[in-house]
Amino acid sequence: MSTLREEALKMHIKNQGKLSVHSKVPVRDAKDLSLAYSPGVAEPCLAIHENESTVYDYTMKGNLVAVVSDGTAVLGLGNIGPKASMPVMEGKALLFKSFADVDAFPICLNTTNPDKIVEVVKLLEPTFGGVNLEDIASPRCFEIEDRLRKECNIPVFHDDQHGTAIVTAAGLINALKLANKKIEDIRVVVNGAGAAGVAIIKLLLCMGVKDVILCDTKGVIYQGRPVGMNKFKEEMATITNKEQMQGTLADALIGADLFVGVSAAGAVTKEMVRSMNQNPIIFAMANPIPEIMPEEAKEAGALVVGTGRSDFPNQVNNVLAFPGIFRGALDVHAKEINEDMKLAAVFAIAGLISDEELHADYVIPDPFDCRVAAHVAAAVATTAIETGVSQKNVNVEDTKKRLLALAKKQKVDGINLV
Amino acid sequence: MSTLREEALKMHIKNQGKLSVHSKVPVRDAKDLSLAYSPGVAEPCLAIHENESTVYDYTMKGNLVAVVSDGTAVLGLGNIGPKASMPVMEGKALLFKSFADVDAFPICLNTTNPDKIVEVVKLLEPTFGGVNLEDIASPRCFEIEDRLRKECNIPVFHDDQHGTAIVTAAGLINALKLANKKIEDIRVVVNGAGAAGVAIIKLLLCMGVKDVILCDTKGVIYQGRPVGMNKFKEEMATITNKEQMQGTLADALIGADLFVGVSAAGAVTKEMVRSMNQNPIIFAMANPIPEIMPEEAKEAGALVVGTGRSDFPNQVNNVLAFPGIFRGALDVHAKEINEDMKLAAVFAIAGLISDEELHADYVIPDPFDCRVAAHVAAAVATTAIETGVSQKNVNVEDTKKRLLALAKKQKVDGINLV
Repeated sequence: MSTLREEALKMHIKNQGKLSVHSKVPVRDAKDLSLAYSPGVAEPCLAIHENESTVYDYTMKGNLVAVVSDGTAVLGLGNIGPKASMPVMEGKALLFKSFADVDAFPICLNTTNPDKIVEVVKLLEPTFGGVNLEDIASPRCFEIEDRLRKECNIPVFHDDQHGTAIVTAAGLINALKLANKKIEDIRVVVNGAGAAGVAIIKLLLCMGVKDVILCDTKGVIYQGRPVGMNKFKEEMATITNKEQMQGTLADALIGADLFVGVSAAGAVTKEMVRSMNQNPIIFAMANPIPEIMPEEAKEAGALVVGTGRSDFPNQVNNVLAFPGIFRGALDVHAKEINEDMKLAAVFAIAGLISDEELHADYVIPDPFDCRVAAHVAAAVATTAIETGVSQKNVNVEDTKKRLLALAKKQKVDGINLV
Repeated sequence: MSTLREEALKMHIKNQGKLSVHSKVPVRDAKDLSLAYSPGVAEPCLAIHENESTVYDYTMKGNLVAVVSDGTAVLGLGNIGPKASMPVMEGKALLFKSFADVDAFPICLNTTNPDKIVEVVKLLEPTFGGVNLEDIASPRCFEIEDRLRKECNIPVFHDDQHGTAIVTAAGLINALKLANKKIEDIRVVVNGAGAAGVAIIKLLLCMGVKDVILCDTKGVIYQGRPVGMNKFKEEMATITNKEQMQGTLADALIGADLFVGVSAAGAVTKEMVRSMNQNPIIFAMANPIPEIMPEEAKEAGALVVGTGRSDFPNQVNNVLAFPGIFRGALDVHAKEINEDMKLAAVFAIAGLISDEELHADYVIPDPFDCRVAAHVAAAVATTAIETGVSQKNVNVEDTKKRLLALAKKQKVDGINLV
């Protein structure tokens, strides 16, 4: 690890970070400047002043996403503050650009107050076409996203919640085919009541799951539990755990069909997997060490195992979701990213694996599969139009072609795309 | 103009604005991503968490300026709002990049409330290395800048005030050589009590001017004037107009040595110029039509005439100042841009014209003179170090070399640099 450490520091210091701002237009002479700046620039200004929606056409807004963080839940590092979160936000912006040609920009805020975060994002709304909330600790992240979704006219998406949920759900759809089970029949146990856990449950309920139990470090969450509750866990207790059982994670797992871990290393034992229903499915996404290692889970009878790691099969990697989701949303000037658009992304990701290709170690596409962003973007744009949140029509086949061409170009440049 | 109009609209729409965000590091394969993103990115995060000042080294902050506007005083178009101001702010960012290799990014805010503007800029402070306030109407711009300069630890600079003041002052230094007058002896009349007028007066007082009168559309400003005053004009009345004269602009100009116009077309007549002292100097900067046309001013006896226009000699163009000023401030991690740094920029700009080259039609360098940003940056960085507002030492000769190399490269690429 010391080599990676040194290399990473060296690379960041050599380049003074990872992003720069470039001109898309030539600046060769006074004529160029008269078009890009005074006096020519007055024309797009006046055009936008007359018709505000043209800001998407004349400015970078239409391709621009703010990557907003307060630095309170950065990677596995915790609350390291906004300045120390900058390298991650620059990195996220780089992924947006590389995978879906979205211009993204870090906005690291000097506050952890939800009211202030909401206010500043609303004040920044004229500049951006979308907002990706990142690495904001729960439960504040729920309130911030909920309020911004209501109060903004541009898409607001907390990737730590929905990105993880969407990719997990895509893997589940394919895993259930192998297990020959229906989503409405399965019993689900989610361990970890943070941003991702809550979003996964909400998405699974949306997809037809009827029986789900949420656990945290204090065990099963039920209404009125005397310890470790907050208003978001109370709300979760009302939509999960239909029998309002009490007990430990091990108690909850008995007879379950699916375990989803967004918790900590070693939370699940072989015995717990053995106690599950036939052909159990395990998504053990604690990083860097999963709740149970894939080989152990398999030995205990797991049919499919996914993790957050690139060195095991079925990696649940958010990069499969967010670049294409924002590409699709931006292309149609979407006012929001609604539940239908998230579901469209789920099925687009799952659908990239054909029934013939599907097997236990391949229920989730490779993060570098160049088709993913293109298919996700097309599905999300189509659904935005169908659900009435778009402000512009678009030919989604053009979106697909454009992103596939981008991927091909990057492959020519050497990127390791499948 | 219809051709320029069509060309400008076409250029903006074709490129969906003028700026994009690029990666400075290669993204070719999983190895590259492991350095730029997870897990390698944790290393610069931890380094910054341990020592906050390293954020300048490991992230884009050290080369990044926010171009902040509320869209209330955009070009000559007035209060057109934040969305319609985006093309100008993108254009400004493009000038930062082209002239001084500074990454600049538009921040167009959905509020005109000074408290909120101050708050949002303070909340954005972790992300940026400097703030360029742009096209914010007076008198709000004064309060906003004053408060931000006190409350931020990064440079905050309202270019509409200080950029114009610095370039005007540089032109004045050279014009006074031709007029053979000393700055402490001259009588100055400034017409226009907006952002630029106020900043010009403050800078001239700083440079030793003893006798200055400020006029607005209601005539000479004096303490307790019953009409058209506000707290900022009252403050100006206490530091100008030492005899507290009352009257019109024409009254004020009798016997004056310098007229500075940041007002409106036609405010000055030939008769007024004739009433001035010998060898009067005229900076008539109303755009697009000056207070008096250069040929008329010359016919009435003006020794030197400057305007805001590129088609007359002695153009007062802010691009001579702000790129180099921020380059110099960023290079030494300056905490502010103080008065000494502004004066350093004045003398750096003025000093580029040798006594041999100096003549009435050449008191201000050409905006495309590739030496300007390099010399301004070096002078500003040196002064920041000397006045104790820098957080890093730098070899200013390297700064000069770097910017001259940039200019040369752009010339190779076709930019029309002198």
